[in-house]
Amino acid sequence: MNIASCLWRQLLTEDLGEEIFAFATKIFPICRSITGNGVRQTLREIGVHIPLEVHEVPTGTAVFDWTIPREWNIRDAYIKNEQGEKIVDFAHSNLHVMSYSVPVRQRISLGELKTHLHTLPNQPDLIPYRTSYYAENWAFCMTHRQFESLRDETYEVLIDSSLTDGYLTYGEYLHKGETDDEFLLSAHVCHPSLANDNCSGMGLLAHLAKRMAGLRTRYSYRFLFAPGTIGAITWLARNEHTSQRIKHGLVVSMVGDGGGPTYKKSRRGNAKIDRAMIHTLHHPGLTPTILDFFPYGYDERQYCSPGFNLPVGLFQRSRFGEIPQYHTSADNLEFIRAGHLAHSFRLIVETLNVIENDAVYRNTTPKCEPQLGKYGLYGAVGGDMKAAATNMALLWILNFSDGTHSLLDIAERSDLPFEIIHNTALKLQQHGLLLLDRVAEPDEFRAVSASCP
Amino acid sequence: MNIASCLWRQLLTEDLGEEIFAFATKIFPICRSITGNGVRQTLREIGVHIPLEVHEVPTGTAVFDWTIPREWNIRDAYIKNEQGEKIVDFAHSNLHVMSYSVPVRQRISLGELKTHLHTLPNQPDLIPYRTSYYAENWAFCMTHRQFESLRDETYEVLIDSSLTDGYLTYGEYLHKGETDDEFLLSAHVCHPSLANDNCSGMGLLAHLAKRMAGLRTRYSYRFLFAPGTIGAITWLARNEHTSQRIKHGLVVSMVGDGGGPTYKKSRRGNAKIDRAMIHTLHHPGLTPTILDFFPYGYDERQYCSPGFNLPVGLFQRSRFGEIPQYHTSADNLEFIRAGHLAHSFRLIVETLNVIENDAVYRNTTPKCEPQLGKYGLYGAVGGDMKAAATNMALLWILNFSDGTHSLLDIAERSDLPFEIIHNTALKLQQHGLLLLDRVAEPDEFRAVSASCP
Amino acid sequence: MNIASCLWRQLLTEDLGEEIFAFATKIFPICRSITGNGVRQTLREIGVHIPLEVHEVPTGTAVFDWTIPREWNIRDAYIKNEQGEKIVDFAHSNLHVMSYSVPVRQRISLGELKTHLHTLPNQPDLIPYRTSYYAENWAFCMTHRQFESLRDETYEVLIDSSLTDGYLTYGEYLHKGETDDEFLLSAHVCHPSLANDNCSGMGLLAHLAKRMAGLRTRYSYRFLFAPGTIGAITWLARNEHTSQRIKHGLVVSMVGDGGGPTYKKSRRGNAKIDRAMIHTLHHPGLTPTILDFFPYGYDERQYCSPGFNLPVGLFQRSRFGEIPQYHTSADNLEFIRAGHLAHSFRLIVETLNVIENDAVYRNTTPKCEPQLGKYGLYGAVGGDMKAAATNMALLWILNFSDGTHSLLDIAERSDLPFEIIHNTALKLQQHGLLLLDRVAEPDEFRAVSASCP
Repeated sequence: MNIASCLWRQLLTEDLGEEIFAFATKIFPICRSITGNGVRQTLREIGVHIPLEVHEVPTGTAVFDWTIPREWNIRDAYIKNEQGEKIVDFAHSNLHVMSYSVPVRQRISLGELKTHLHTLPNQPDLIPYRTSYYAENWAFCMTHRQFESLRDETYEVLIDSSLTDGYLTYGEYLHKGETDDEFLLSAHVCHPSLANDNCSGMGLLAHLAKRMAGLRTRYSYRFLFAPGTIGAITWLARNEHTSQRIKHGLVVSMVGDGGGPTYKKSRRGNAKIDRAMIHTLHHPGLTPTILDFFPYGYDERQYCSPGFNLPVGLFQRSRFGEIPQYHTSADNLEFIRAGHLAHSFRLIVETLNVIENDAVYRNTTPKCEPQLGKYGLYGAVGGDMKAAATNMALLWILNFSDGTHSLLDIAERSDLPFEIIHNTALKLQQHGLLLLDRVAEPDEFRAVSASCP
Repeated sequence: MNIASCLWRQLLTEDLGEEIFAFATKIFPICRSITGNGVRQTLREIGVHIPLEVHEVPTGTAVFDWTIPREWNIRDAYIKNEQGEKIVDFAHSNLHVMSYSVPVRQRISLGELKTHLHTLPNQPDLIPYRTSYYAENWAFCMTHRQFESLRDETYEVLIDSSLTDGYLTYGEYLHKGETDDEFLLSAHVCHPSLANDNCSGMGLLAHLAKRMAGLRTRYSYRFLFAPGTIGAITWLARNEHTSQRIKHGLVVSMVGDGGGPTYKKSRRGNAKIDRAMIHTLHHPGLTPTILDFFPYGYDERQYCSPGFNLPVGLFQRSRFGEIPQYHTSADNLEFIRAGHLAHSFRLIVETLNVIENDAVYRNTTPKCEPQLGKYGLYGAVGGDMKAAATNMALLWILNFSDGTHSLLDIAERSDLPFEIIHNTALKLQQHGLLLLDRVAEPDEFRAVSASCP
Repeated sequence: MNIASCLWRQLLTEDLGEEIFAFATKIFPICRSITGNGVRQTLREIGVHIPLEVHEVPTGTAVFDWTIPREWNIRDAYIKNEQGEKIVDFAHSNLHVMSYSVPVRQRISLGELKTHLHTLPNQPDLIPYRTSYYAENWAFCMTHRQFESLRDETYEVLIDSSLTDGYLTYGEYLHKGETDDEFLLSAHVCHPSLANDNCSGMGLLAHLAKRMAGLRTRYSYRFLFAPGTIGAITWLARNEHTSQRIKHGLVVSMVGDGGGPTYKKSRRGNAKIDRAMIHTLHHPGLTPTILDFFPYGYDERQYCSPGFNLPVGLFQRSRFGEIPQYHTSADNLEFIRAGHLAHSFRLIVETLNVIENDAVYRNTTPKCEPQLGKYGLYGAVGGDMKAAATNMALLWILNFSDGTHSLLDIAERSDLPFEIIHNTALKLQQHGLLLLDRVAEPDEFRAVSASCP
């Protein structure tokens, strides 16, 4: 064990949430899609904080069952009424244009226009977010209230976009640890102005990578900023060999709102990352939602496809799709908070701390308890339940450090925070009462104690 | 897979419930017991619908620890009061005479008569159903209200029955499938005028056998119509070798009332039939009762005795013994309904559909998702949760068709109906995205995914 | 099987609770500690009932990580005020002096005195129980009410104690059974006047040992009366080899109050003793608390240390530390009752009965049920659910006596009391329907039936 929990604590500073929020604010207005200059501009902003490696993959490149599509860019878009007023203007919100809309400039009747409009009748004041990556089409999105007020007249529509051979762009950054075993941290970069989904995730990971810079870690940490689905597929197709080094991973999205936290387990269901995250989320005061893996959601779908089956889970605050702001104009900068971003950051750091420090120790005096008082490790006045309670971590570690229980096993069984178990173990080790047996293997299964039914 | 789910759907027609009800009505009046002409007459009625093979096993034949008893037949029975009035008359209800009552004709006092009367004090208007197969005795059953009104006088009792060397009679019918592996469907035929228990079960199975006639099936289906306990024991004793072919089975009784549905698992507890039935009963809108195996009940007791331990469960509507009509004159034709019979039939057919079609497929593009849109299998406009929901079956099948999960595994895990999973798998197979790996073995255990704790 | 359940029943007589209570009353006033004459006097009282072997282990002896401390004895102690009145007097309650207080005789100010006083501010009328075995110190314990009324004057304090090289004393008694496999029953003897904790436990075990005298048992029963922690450690250090014979064990403490019952499982969690005790406590009418093992509590901490990991659980009424009387002067003779002591005794005897008699039988007619009526084992009139219910034990045993289920397995699965299962099995054995396959191994795990998920 080369990393005391206190080192990880250094990552958590007062200004953390504000920094991430400021970053999210900066990239919020950019019109991203699965390809194009919006993604490049976003990656440049990330590159301000970490030495990001940016990859460009040409249109037409085969990536497993998929093909890199043409690159989409957009300069302007509007709908004008007969008075020449722009009633819908891309400049006001990039959600107004369905992503990957083909170029259009024409005058059309209301009836025809309506076949190219998306609204949310049940949320009449919000603009929906829509895409059509693989079917050529164009559309505008608007509030349902505006939709209902449209007069029966001729409209002028313009979408000044381009769909041309180009590139799919993604960025990655590797924090080198002591081993080549990797921890993947992945955020999608393809959504336009949606603050929580996923300016929050990009900001959190960019700042985690930045703050880890000086930290000696056991694992190497791979930060991946790629468009959803096609981006993850592209990375996996180009990195099949590297993917085998991924021992743990998290997809990070929607980490700035006040809901949750939510953790969706990897397909394996009991991977170390699953156990570490679940243990971390069972902090007093949190009411986490823990979901079994299901093959819908974010890029864990690709990482957990059966041909890879990587131990990658999904961390979020509110569960995607279950909040009214999801994929609407209400997912704006007012929806996320610096405090929530900092809290999400802390939960992820605590989870990494578990992964880094889980190990199996051996009690050097396994026959009966050692006389802890001798070592100054134990309250000397008997009969006092309170002193006893504070000594519980000592007793749990000593009793279960028999070579078959890791610190995480003991933290789970004792219902004590991993950090307390870990720091207490280091103290026992200093007194010679505990010896390191082995670092916990990344894919070591939960030690099945005889008490499991 | 040679049977699309739609073929099984053909068995379910509008008039199904009415047909079964009409059959139950026809056999209801017959005075059945564990032997005798009532059973023969009932089997003849079944034989009208299917080419039933009827077996006669002589009195005295040893069947395991048992011996075929003498054959019991009854022509008439009554109790007359001093005025010569028949106050109890077998002609009105065959429940009035305890089954296997020995012949009697005598004049007796009220006091002595009472030692030969069965009533239900807590259900004073109902006649109980009673038997005494293995202890020579005679008795009448009557309402408790009548019992209490009996005057202290001398009564004339007649039971014109016979207990003579004869035969135990049962019938069986085999629907030949593509393999010799068998699915056993068993109903007891020994109860007199009890509509639900088990005119309903006999009627359901007779019509299931009849309707399956034209259907190509993987399994051979054995329909057994035999007296309870001694009949099942007799069949098992005479068919020890054949019994090894039974890979799945259901005892069917009390399938016409409005309660339940109830499924009692086989002794194995996780046999394919248990999983298939439980999955089927977890349809939305049903509130099934699932019971662990216990060694009391119907003929599953014999099929699941430790020397056989066959994978045979019990399907019912209300749970036996837990409704006031159970084993009384209230279990009459008003207690069962055509609609309930049809619903029970449908649940069994859906279960057979699972058993017939469960198979393990392999995703041909296991690395990342295939681009479903390419195949026209997927809604092309992203961000729309509703389209996504309807595509869930596709994603579940692709993600879990890794050679270790059968369609039933996937249906269970995804909580989607087997029929949807099966039909979607066939569609994926048509597009080359799925290959059949193997038919699911009848006794293949649930594929234990890594997520099982 | 050499012990019918009825033999164990003999241990339970009318006067049982009164006898144990009388014993507890006798030893209650003795001032015990982890060493000294109070322990010797207590063991002499136990020796009145059983031929107890008393061991004396010299001060300074190393026992694993510990050392036998000096022997502590006390003759008198008081606090006098300026008027020469004894405001605290050891003669009134031995709880007034912190155990292992070093000798003191001096005049001190109130301020200084207060640094040597223990009280319970939240329970102002109770005297706390405190010890300081391994840190040299002295203190008095008093009610908080008295503490608050202390005047600012000079006090004379006397503790006429001695801490000298001597011995640690413990007693043990072995009831020899047919095998050398042992059942350990252990009670701590180090607490002064605390009636429930543990005059009750000492009394219960002394009388259990006494009453077992004439009983032929399969296991040998080791009764250990030793000071808490250091006594158990001493016994284990001196009996490492013997400890390997311990196949089952119970620590017994606080068995006279009206709470609970409570059972804390052994570290193994599914040892036979765990299953037997839990089964016994699931009697109708009881609301037991079953706790997973945790490494704090009584001497199960030592027996279950990882170097021994013995199958030893803890039986109590109320859970320690969770009642206001715990470790206070309210744990007096009014807190325990003869009836509770007798009930605790009965629960332990029933548990021993399970351990002694658990065995695996084989059904001699495994193919279908035997015709129980033939053997007079079964109600002959069918259709009567009540008779059926009383026959359930027969059916459960026959169905599950397949060589993989022990009687305890069957009792657990059928939810019928072990005693009924056991006595019914003996009846079936008499009729040749059941053969003893093997005595259940002490550490045989629960037979995993196929129905386990």
